[in-house]
Amino acid sequence: MKLLVEKVQILSMANHQLPYEGNIGIEDGNIIFLGDIPESFKPDRTLNGNNLLAMPGLINAHTHMGMSLLRNYADDLPLMTWLSEKIWPVEAKISKEDIYYGSLLSMAELIKSGCTTFRDMYFQMDEVAKATELAGLRANLGQGLVGFSDPSLVGFDQVRELYNKWHSKAEGRIRIEVAPHAPYTCSTTYLTKARDLAMELNVPLHIHLSESVQEINDSLSNHEMTPIALMDSIGLFDAKVSAAHCVHLQEQDFEILKKNNVSVLYNPSSNLKLGNGFAQVTKMLKCGINVALGTDGASSNNNLNMLEEIHLGALVNKGVEGDPTVLPAYQMLEIATINGAKALGIEKMVGTLEVGKKADIIFIDLDKSHLVPLHNLVSMVVYSAAASDIKHVICNGKIIMENYKITTFDEREVIQKVKQLSEELIKRVNE
Amino acid sequence: MKLLVEKVQILSMANHQLPYEGNIGIEDGNIIFLGDIPESFKPDRTLNGNNLLAMPGLINAHTHMGMSLLRNYADDLPLMTWLSEKIWPVEAKISKEDIYYGSLLSMAELIKSGCTTFRDMYFQMDEVAKATELAGLRANLGQGLVGFSDPSLVGFDQVRELYNKWHSKAEGRIRIEVAPHAPYTCSTTYLTKARDLAMELNVPLHIHLSESVQEINDSLSNHEMTPIALMDSIGLFDAKVSAAHCVHLQEQDFEILKKNNVSVLYNPSSNLKLGNGFAQVTKMLKCGINVALGTDGASSNNNLNMLEEIHLGALVNKGVEGDPTVLPAYQMLEIATINGAKALGIEKMVGTLEVGKKADIIFIDLDKSHLVPLHNLVSMVVYSAAASDIKHVICNGKIIMENYKITTFDEREVIQKVKQLSEELIKRVNE
Repeated sequence: MKLLVEKVQILSMANHQLPYEGNIGIEDGNIIFLGDIPESFKPDRTLNGNNLLAMPGLINAHTHMGMSLLRNYADDLPLMTWLSEKIWPVEAKISKEDIYYGSLLSMAELIKSGCTTFRDMYFQMDEVAKATELAGLRANLGQGLVGFSDPSLVGFDQVRELYNKWHSKAEGRIRIEVAPHAPYTCSTTYLTKARDLAMELNVPLHIHLSESVQEINDSLSNHEMTPIALMDSIGLFDAKVSAAHCVHLQEQDFEILKKNNVSVLYNPSSNLKLGNGFAQVTKMLKCGINVALGTDGASSNNNLNMLEEIHLGALVNKGVEGDPTVLPAYQMLEIATINGAKALGIEKMVGTLEVGKKADIIFIDLDKSHLVPLHNLVSMVVYSAAASDIKHVICNGKIIMENYKITTFDEREVIQKVKQLSEELIKRVNE
Repeated sequence: MKLLVEKVQILSMANHQLPYEGNIGIEDGNIIFLGDIPESFKPDRTLNGNNLLAMPGLINAHTHMGMSLLRNYADDLPLMTWLSEKIWPVEAKISKEDIYYGSLLSMAELIKSGCTTFRDMYFQMDEVAKATELAGLRANLGQGLVGFSDPSLVGFDQVRELYNKWHSKAEGRIRIEVAPHAPYTCSTTYLTKARDLAMELNVPLHIHLSESVQEINDSLSNHEMTPIALMDSIGLFDAKVSAAHCVHLQEQDFEILKKNNVSVLYNPSSNLKLGNGFAQVTKMLKCGINVALGTDGASSNNNLNMLEEIHLGALVNKGVEGDPTVLPAYQMLEIATINGAKALGIEKMVGTLEVGKKADIIFIDLDKSHLVPLHNLVSMVVYSAAASDIKHVICNGKIIMENYKITTFDEREVIQKVKQLSEELIKRVNE
């Protein structure tokens, strides 16, 4: 299949290139040219690029796909009330079918808001993998692991099974990784074994770190170390680690993260909504830490809209620093694209539009009243664009949304199914 | 004209009523019933309310409509560089036609994001009034006044002319008010005369107050008072005042605002984007100050999307306070509806859905993948909904957007015209 995108504005996100008009050639899932059309190229299909901006698909580096079932189910509550009285009782009753359709619903939202790659940590990852294969998205999938009682290795067999069944499958779009939940839900012994597993399988390790003040205080009380120092002390960072949140860092934590090439997954909406506060993003970037962006789950956000996270991240850090020049638009877009790819370990495949990379491309419809006049396309994406401006989405060279319509599955059917399943789920919880 | 909205979810925002299913009857611009349909009511037109949430039109209490021409023109710059090198040189060259079409473009964006009333402070207010009459929106319009040299009263004649020509015109949708720009662009003598004019015409006074740290420091140096204390000392608050921003307040400022029934116009995006910081919204509310919401102009935002401001305001204050229970969803919606009406002095006409009030109603399409499941409709509006979910808009009893299409003017023509005008404008600036 040879696909040509004709005369489109291209924001490659490579080498600080400014947006330029050109053509994009795609063959066998890969970008084979950008700019002029080689004479030898005979496309099977041509997409009209008029009034569109093409840029790399956004990378949602931290989410819990199945939690869409709990969207707007419990809000404006203290963290522990929210978890123990609302979220956990429902999660205890969630079925495989719930996860499959809840994840598909999330994928509809991701596609429609310009996201081509996500990283998930939740349950029933086999169901999520099936849904990912169908939806046509790229994903790093990690079964959420919780292990208190040493030396049990609860869940490790599942990770191996998932790895054998799904790693590099679905045309290479799916990768399996190791995802212990957090230092306060896993013992240090369990975590070192999780690290060993990640290193054995040669995959990234995905964990929550330093999200709330409570977590830091508990760690200091129990271990006389911050969560990040504790993880350093047990050698967790010998694996390729991505740490979600990192809202509350002490001076030494920055050095530990940098020294160990840990990627930080920034979740502005969730950090604010749960009252956790403001991650020091500009300081992390200055220290040379790779910062990627995520939406977290739909029950602490309450959507999976990466353009909203981009907008929020760019604004909030200017307010925190009292300086309108920090985290400028282009840098914010790097966080949402190439930095995400680095965190997921797929920066050679995606994250920028470059010849030889996979064709994960989104197209923003520029003909909207809230986007014109088009003085600056980079600012436009960060400060003005909305999910509803994403017109087409290509992932792995395949058009998965065309003219605002998802092509890989029936979105309306999924919406209806989720409405029904979530009603039944809440009934089961209240029984 | 009798209009019936049949079987719709109604979020009235009156008396903390929960959303309920009912019908809405509209006659001669007014809501004449909510709930059951009186037998005598024979509608000329029926709107199907299936899968829709009806709520009061949002009220954008602080914006500069013409600034859409400068959307994404200059970003990520220090405040004074932005103003003196970018914004002011362009504003010096803006034509009447620019303002007319720039304002119409803004109105397209407002309608499409569920806003039925706006308050503008900018130039060429006669052009804005014409555009408002055409677009079918409700507006408080204030010619921006700047007056350094006492005792000149530059601009006052214009305000009187506008008042005579437009106040209560366009089926009563337009109100003229007095809008001196700020204490640092108007002398105290000028400001007391502006107050006198507002009181003579019996209209509100709209001003910027305490937006940046620099402004506070300058005021303390020059007057030994905060801007708000200074305004109190000259009796500005004898008029019905709305103060935009109020980001940096000292303890006494809260008391002054409360004592004088001053409304605060909160602009979260702009306050963050310009690096001004975080207004203490929850403290203001606790003090009993009326807080309304605005987008500010599109060049410091860079859009006029009230749903985004709602979302941002609700999230950011939780982060600032470190408490997920502050500014819950319902309270945030009050800020964007009835509190806005109070600030504009039109709370008897709009701001809630109640029998006898004007029919300013927006309809959110609930059949979207990023909104379901519909566990809580109030949370859904605040945390999940996007501008693109607004399906119909009624203002003053007239349908001004139906099935996502603006009915009062040609949106596509305005987009094309603004593209052309803004190119010509920038050419004039660079000549």
